[in-house]
Amino acid sequence: MNKINLAEKYASFDETWSPRIIGETNGQLVKIAKARGEFVWHSHDNEDELFLVIKGRLVIEFREHRVELGPGEMCIVPKGVEHKPMADEETWILLIEPASTEHTGRTQSAITVAKEDQHWI
Amino acid sequence: MNKINLAEKYASFDETWSPRIIGETNGQLVKIAKARGEFVWHSHDNEDELFLVIKGRLVIEFREHRVELGPGEMCIVPKGVEHKPMADEETWILLIEPASTEHTGRTQSAITVAKEDQHWI
Repeated sequence: MNKINLAEKYASFDETWSPRIIGETNGQLVKIAKARGEFVWHSHDNEDELFLVIKGRLVIEFREHRVELGPGEMCIVPKGVEHKPMADEETWILLIEPASTEHTGRTQSAITVAKEDQHWI
Repeated sequence: MNKINLAEKYASFDETWSPRIIGETNGQLVKIAKARGEFVWHSHDNEDELFLVIKGRLVIEFREHRVELGPGEMCIVPKGVEHKPMADEETWILLIEPASTEHTGRTQSAITVAKEDQHWI
């Protein structure tokens, strides 16, 4: 029941594509990450994933289309849908997803951070 | 899998304390509302509730303390905890809560909007 200031949380780390956990609500984790460059194609079998852009510009590629999100814009990726996030500049994203969500779904990549290694800040 | 632009959604209505639904993720509804004035003391027996301020300033009073949230600040109110949101100026808030959440918990008030009357925009 305390205030969570997003800018302070983002200021506390530099790594890109490395989610930090900042809250939990009804079994969903609230995470923040810095995006830059290309993520990997992946999907989550059982989890929807909400992306909200706080700063910068995020492209989410789908197989048939893409969305471009600026600050104050969001997109919900339904379970099972392949997607690949990308950002040309450093972009701050807020994610909401179940605690069970694997970072890159079943795709293993050098970019993958095991959910056990995603820490609270 | 489309872009949801928060400012466009907020521009589509004027009423305060009247949540609109803009998304659904893992059984949670993403809602936006305009806050101004005092809400009522209430709690939700079974639902945590996430408040994120997009514009303006929201005070959430608890029985023992209060939090003041500006843009980019959030607070998660755990199930069962009494709270009363307030805003001196028109304030834009984003809420994430289960579909089962009653607007004012068990408290009935002139301000209450039944969940059946909270519409998608």
